[in-house]
Amino acid sequence: MLKFVSLLLALSCCQGLHHNNIDDYVEAEPVFQASKYGSLWPLPQKVQISEVSFKLSSASFRIVDAKASSAGPSCSLLQSAYRRYYEYMFGSAKKQWGSKNNRRSDPSDLTELQVWITSPDSECDGYPSVTSDESCEYLLFLVHVMFYRSLETFSQLVSEDEYGAKSINATIINDFPRFQHRGILLDSSRHFLPIKVILSNLETMAMNKINVFHWHIVDEQSFPYLSRTFPQLSEQGAYHPYTHVYTPADVKMVIEFARLRGIRVVPEFDTPGHTQSWGKGQKDLLTPCYSGSKPSGSFGPVNPILNTTYDFMAKFFTEISTVFPDGYIHLGGDEVDFTCWKSNPDIQKFMEQQHFGEDYSKLESFYIQKLLDIVASTKKGYLVWQEVFDNGVKLKPDTVVHVWIGGRSDKEMSNVTAAGYTTILSAPWYLDYISYGQDWQKYYKVEPLNFEGTDEQKKLVIGGEACLWGEYVDATNLTPRLWPRASAVAERLWSAKNVTDIDDAFNRLSLHRCRMVERGIPAEPLFSSYCLHEYKGV
Amino acid sequence: MLKFVSLLLALSCCQGLHHNNIDDYVEAEPVFQASKYGSLWPLPQKVQISEVSFKLSSASFRIVDAKASSAGPSCSLLQSAYRRYYEYMFGSAKKQWGSKNNRRSDPSDLTELQVWITSPDSECDGYPSVTSDESCEYLLFLVHVMFYRSLETFSQLVSEDEYGAKSINATIINDFPRFQHRGILLDSSRHFLPIKVILSNLETMAMNKINVFHWHIVDEQSFPYLSRTFPQLSEQGAYHPYTHVYTPADVKMVIEFARLRGIRVVPEFDTPGHTQSWGKGQKDLLTPCYSGSKPSGSFGPVNPILNTTYDFMAKFFTEISTVFPDGYIHLGGDEVDFTCWKSNPDIQKFMEQQHFGEDYSKLESFYIQKLLDIVASTKKGYLVWQEVFDNGVKLKPDTVVHVWIGGRSDKEMSNVTAAGYTTILSAPWYLDYISYGQDWQKYYKVEPLNFEGTDEQKKLVIGGEACLWGEYVDATNLTPRLWPRASAVAERLWSAKNVTDIDDAFNRLSLHRCRMVERGIPAEPLFSSYCLHEYKGV
Repeated sequence: MLKFVSLLLALSCCQGLHHNNIDDYVEAEPVFQASKYGSLWPLPQKVQISEVSFKLSSASFRIVDAKASSAGPSCSLLQSAYRRYYEYMFGSAKKQWGSKNNRRSDPSDLTELQVWITSPDSECDGYPSVTSDESCEYLLFLVHVMFYRSLETFSQLVSEDEYGAKSINATIINDFPRFQHRGILLDSSRHFLPIKVILSNLETMAMNKINVFHWHIVDEQSFPYLSRTFPQLSEQGAYHPYTHVYTPADVKMVIEFARLRGIRVVPEFDTPGHTQSWGKGQKDLLTPCYSGSKPSGSFGPVNPILNTTYDFMAKFFTEISTVFPDGYIHLGGDEVDFTCWKSNPDIQKFMEQQHFGEDYSKLESFYIQKLLDIVASTKKGYLVWQEVFDNGVKLKPDTVVHVWIGGRSDKEMSNVTAAGYTTILSAPWYLDYISYGQDWQKYYKVEPLNFEGTDEQKKLVIGGEACLWGEYVDATNLTPRLWPRASAVAERLWSAKNVTDIDDAFNRLSLHRCRMVERGIPAEPLFSSYCLHEYKGV
Repeated sequence: MLKFVSLLLALSCCQGLHHNNIDDYVEAEPVFQASKYGSLWPLPQKVQISEVSFKLSSASFRIVDAKASSAGPSCSLLQSAYRRYYEYMFGSAKKQWGSKNNRRSDPSDLTELQVWITSPDSECDGYPSVTSDESCEYLLFLVHVMFYRSLETFSQLVSEDEYGAKSINATIINDFPRFQHRGILLDSSRHFLPIKVILSNLETMAMNKINVFHWHIVDEQSFPYLSRTFPQLSEQGAYHPYTHVYTPADVKMVIEFARLRGIRVVPEFDTPGHTQSWGKGQKDLLTPCYSGSKPSGSFGPVNPILNTTYDFMAKFFTEISTVFPDGYIHLGGDEVDFTCWKSNPDIQKFMEQQHFGEDYSKLESFYIQKLLDIVASTKKGYLVWQEVFDNGVKLKPDTVVHVWIGGRSDKEMSNVTAAGYTTILSAPWYLDYISYGQDWQKYYKVEPLNFEGTDEQKKLVIGGEACLWGEYVDATNLTPRLWPRASAVAERLWSAKNVTDIDDAFNRLSLHRCRMVERGIPAEPLFSSYCLHEYKGV
């Protein structure tokens, strides 16, 4: 795990500009007001922004490895982050790059951000994990940080005056996320999502300090994952075997792109329901449904009574555990429809043999239990949708239960944590449900720990996820539909519990969304207003 | 007005391919079914698609002027449409262009679409108007058309097999729009819309046979219209005087781009309410509000009691009548809040002098009446929002009343037409209101003539408009939010009254939306599915 101490060196003297650039920037804006926290999003745990301001010149400013740093030029993760954030901060200003050597530093210039990595075990080549430490501390210009997050914060502190001049106020920050699991679910089955869309959303996740990409990669509608072991799954089950699949190289690229931004990629392969597309390429995997005494020709959930099913799952999840480096796999387990199982005489016979009576949730548990054992043998942890817990399946203690059913999700949170399971919350954050107006406020007002339970229970809530299911979403509308609505969730999961001022959030989020737009992300507007630099695309 | 007779010549013999390509195209699609009308949208009034199919080769197929045509190579409107539709039909196939001279035509090839313009008064250099005839007739390969619309229809008949080969089935079409006014309102005041966004939506309007762009160009929030006569209006009232304005050149470009696609540009300058942004650059235009006996510093609607107001309006609308060539201007007149007028002692005095009592709608009418006289003197017709009619303002007989208030808009349609006024309907088509699911069906099911009234009254309904107000919409999300939801309105306003089969509509619209995507428009999906060629942008 990487730890950094970054040192901002004002090379010349420290006579700062006494001038609050954040106020200036906002002055022209007719709708939102200036927040004393500028455009910071999500709000760090502790911030003190002074009025002492330093100028940043694109010609002279550098992000460099500190001499004592344990990681340096060979750490490509670091070097690419430096470039990315330089680009974010100065954008088109790079044009004046040529003049760098001629330029004399102004006494009030801030010329270097030194990144000093203190942890001996460098994460340069590793993957972010559930135990990655994301806490950070800024002291004036002495910065102690987990760098992905703190470079984002640093870049958010840079403001621009009307002449385009960049500056940063001396600032003390002590920061850490309130919840360690801050995720976004994207669904590439209802609609195929081109790699470009996924990457650009990973980019945006990083801007919002989201650290988990929950990739709901396959479902009923299509199976775009190209499996090396079972290539016929996508050959038959994808919308198109060439244009609508994720090749091993694609998946690798997504994982690496995410890694460089401190984002875990947690794939979901949902069974035994939601599997119509699996059945096209894998004979006998799904249960044949019966109409009276004859097979109807349609198929139901995975067939839980055949040994071949478990042979297949063992091979399949062995591949998945190798392809995806994260410690966890999401195994789904939601919304299993029993109608087809009930219709099938072989299943009925099996139910009798197992003494399950008429309780098909016992059959579901039977399947899940065997699946969990298979996956556990690959040394992976797993996440499951809440039904798996509700049905009383025996779970490993480190299983994460994913609460998604609306209505009384607080009850469910109580129950899951009372049983000692770790949990994440999505029920209030189904962003595929859209409505007129500023619905980000609804997402923002959620308090994940608002359920009955002991302090011990509350500690079992490790975070949550915003879910953008794909029935009505594809590359044409995904990004503006997700952002900045998911930003509301991002702040709820990062910032302190008492950060609930909706007006201040509006002011900061308005600027934050314009910043996303400036970085090329078509994040939609909160309300009537404008950005200095509007989105250029269509 | 242009009239065309187009002749499709199968140069060689007429042994067509007996092969239904439309079925083929749909076969791979898991969600929607093949419509017998293929992907036609909006559905023409009469269509008979035969099974005789002709191949179209990008190397040999040409759209050419017929010898007897009254317009030819000098008609840039025609020539640019040929290019556009060639591009739509063959797209990247142009790559094989080089081989054109070597290629021998197949006997089943369709090699030419001859466009034969029959009307003596060519509209090549003119503007589309309310009287433009859009009726068209296809007879096998003898086509009699208003060409903007019929080229679109022709291009929609072209299908592609799995090898990318294009073909078209012999088809008889007799077509005309049910309503002559088929509009879309875009709002460039709540958010500035870059020219690029407007142009690409004009392009999409043409694909949907929408023929009116209602440009709600200014409103409370900002005044992006750069007036030559009153440049201070945008200097002070735009979000930004340089980056968030429409220059005369911009406006000209929008009008010309629309003209080439048979689309009228009807600008709206809404007064006396919705005018906060006007007040910033035009001193004394707005009413000073009072708090007790003193001006509060804030301003209300346009001040209707000053002569300077009418001097300003006369000059302003004289400019507008020159800049916008269409025969109509939309004058707004909606949602006038009387609070500020009531607070102002000068207004109170004026009310007494005029014997208006406490009825401020009389004051509103007083203003509107004078404004209408001013605009009438510029020889323009006008549209007004329904309140102007509701308040009993005397209107010219050719005034178009725009019905927008939801709830009982059928009552309003009855009243407006009973009074003998022409009307257009928007109340059920406020597309800025979004909701989860297939809300296009709601828009599709509207029957504009569903109100009590005589046949004479029904004839006064000349059409309708889909409105996309801008509070929550800018360049980041406008296009996918508008399309294909507005396509539902487009078919309702074009096709026959009995075209109401929602399943058939779904099947055709699914293909129509994929066609828009293929033409580079990020039209959002109707439901889980895919397009052969997905949207490439993000």
